[in-house]
Amino acid sequence: MKTIPTPYLLYLGNAKDELSVKTSRGVAAWRPELCVGEYRAEGCTVTLNLPQLGFTDAVAKGAKTLVIGIANAGGLMGAQIIEDAIAALDAGLNVASGLHDRLKSHPEIVAAAERNDRKLFDIRQPPANLKVGNGEPRAGRRLLTVGSDCSVGKMYSTLALEKELRSRNINADFRATGQTGILIAQSGIPIDAVIADFISGAVEMISPAREDNGWDLIEGQGSLFHPSYAGVSLGLLHGAQADALVLCHELDRPHMRGLPGRPLPDLATCLKANLDAAKVTNPNAIAVGVCVNASRLSPEQARKACDEIEQSLGLPCQDPIAMGVNRIADKLIECFDKSVAA
Amino acid sequence: MKTIPTPYLLYLGNAKDELSVKTSRGVAAWRPELCVGEYRAEGCTVTLNLPQLGFTDAVAKGAKTLVIGIANAGGLMGAQIIEDAIAALDAGLNVASGLHDRLKSHPEIVAAAERNDRKLFDIRQPPANLKVGNGEPRAGRRLLTVGSDCSVGKMYSTLALEKELRSRNINADFRATGQTGILIAQSGIPIDAVIADFISGAVEMISPAREDNGWDLIEGQGSLFHPSYAGVSLGLLHGAQADALVLCHELDRPHMRGLPGRPLPDLATCLKANLDAAKVTNPNAIAVGVCVNASRLSPEQARKACDEIEQSLGLPCQDPIAMGVNRIADKLIECFDKSVAA
Repeated sequence: MKTIPTPYLLYLGNAKDELSVKTSRGVAAWRPELCVGEYRAEGCTVTLNLPQLGFTDAVAKGAKTLVIGIANAGGLMGAQIIEDAIAALDAGLNVASGLHDRLKSHPEIVAAAERNDRKLFDIRQPPANLKVGNGEPRAGRRLLTVGSDCSVGKMYSTLALEKELRSRNINADFRATGQTGILIAQSGIPIDAVIADFISGAVEMISPAREDNGWDLIEGQGSLFHPSYAGVSLGLLHGAQADALVLCHELDRPHMRGLPGRPLPDLATCLKANLDAAKVTNPNAIAVGVCVNASRLSPEQARKACDEIEQSLGLPCQDPIAMGVNRIADKLIECFDKSVAA
Repeated sequence: MKTIPTPYLLYLGNAKDELSVKTSRGVAAWRPELCVGEYRAEGCTVTLNLPQLGFTDAVAKGAKTLVIGIANAGGLMGAQIIEDAIAALDAGLNVASGLHDRLKSHPEIVAAAERNDRKLFDIRQPPANLKVGNGEPRAGRRLLTVGSDCSVGKMYSTLALEKELRSRNINADFRATGQTGILIAQSGIPIDAVIADFISGAVEMISPAREDNGWDLIEGQGSLFHPSYAGVSLGLLHGAQADALVLCHELDRPHMRGLPGRPLPDLATCLKANLDAAKVTNPNAIAVGVCVNASRLSPEQARKACDEIEQSLGLPCQDPIAMGVNRIADKLIECFDKSVAA
């Protein structure tokens, strides 16, 4: 897998709402040390509170890659973005984009990259050299976040665990399977975009054997209980060969994402299904915690709901945003301490 | 989905072994009425015992499509096949191919198709208009074959059930998810070749709502227990929204396909996992039988093994090749007779 060079200049274009800069904001939040500034085009009304830099100034400050981490109508590039990408390349930056519309599908962008000897990273495009998974045991420890549904905080939880483990001097590396994650990790594979035969093989590729006693923390996707995406989730689970699972869930979500009327699975059922499936490639897989998004609840309600989940599943349950993930990290270390003790 | 015009002329090229004409043989076996003949190039040493026809003669006998149903080194087209495909197009045939190397990637073949106003069917190429699955209940009855492993006879079993149900004047249609199946059904989607996000959506597309009280019999792929392909199998299971499952299994297979040392799952565990997952999109899903490939056993051993499976799972168990599938069809009708009674 290619690595996206850093530091980044984060492109906000002419964004006018918070949601459309979600990807750039994620990168700024989790890797502030990799972000030298933001680029705002005329009409932009949002900011990440980073230094506002032009392309040449950004290069002077060490920036290596312009990150087009915005969402716009239909995922298309648009004349403004194309023009800005070319200007960035001419200023000496590489360009990475999370848009559906690919940099490499625009000949004028490709030409600009070639004449400046810069690279283009279309992060929704999986690598061409994927292999079929083999399920062979490999060295290293791996944790995977799994979900009761899509968009329940799996990336956030995985990154919170990385931060927590690193704060305890444990080697831990976030392994990305989605576009924001890939920009944060500087590499990864957009797992929902690979050919179906290669799902588990792609996960084996992003979390290869490791011998340093550290952890690969793999970003989960979807849910075994989401009728649209469960195939992705199962391939991810098998490819991850996870030693430890963390179940992610949004409290009080009214229905499965995008499917009004379809309730979320019972958490115990969901956890058991994930553990059973995980054991196909790692018979020793265990769960070490539950991460909830409690933003629909009051702090008091959230605390009560977490207590109930702890009681019923026998696992620490925390809202990573409001409570951190320290108790889940404790549990992970308790369960695997021989391997992670410093 | 496009329909491949029939009758077919089956292309054997210069094949020298049975395995390499497996796809053509499957079409000839299951749809003899669609096959007017076979085309053998110089050096070919195998035959399907169909009339040997040149392209012009085949057209005179009504053939509409040349089917390149052979496997050769690396799935490449080769000069001979390219030349023959062009000659077939010039004679007025459409061309369908199951090779990895695509007809449409050869400009000279595309040009021949254009000048003759004929169509090219690359059956390993999924359609471009796939949608994400939605899991919404849809009309009609669907049966899906699921497996303890890959290549355990799911296509054969599904087709045997189609034949058996049709012989009882029950509307039943094989729905194809693999290349041989697609040539047999004249349409379908190669499910392992779709983008991961669209697995269940592709299955919803090949088995749309039906109101005639008949059955869609959906060809399964892979196994929930195969670490390489389980994502495909789970997406298939969810998209199929199956009312009835038939479990397929090869007796005495030493290990999971391609993975020496990895044992096959216990059948009861395998069946339960499939039923549990099926219930995500069809809470009423049930199993109606077990199809075994008993070719490694003597007839006596096979009978005994089937009896044991019947006892332990409480379902009819038959080897479709040696015993047919009549008792599984009986069970299906018994369980759903209100809907399938003539």
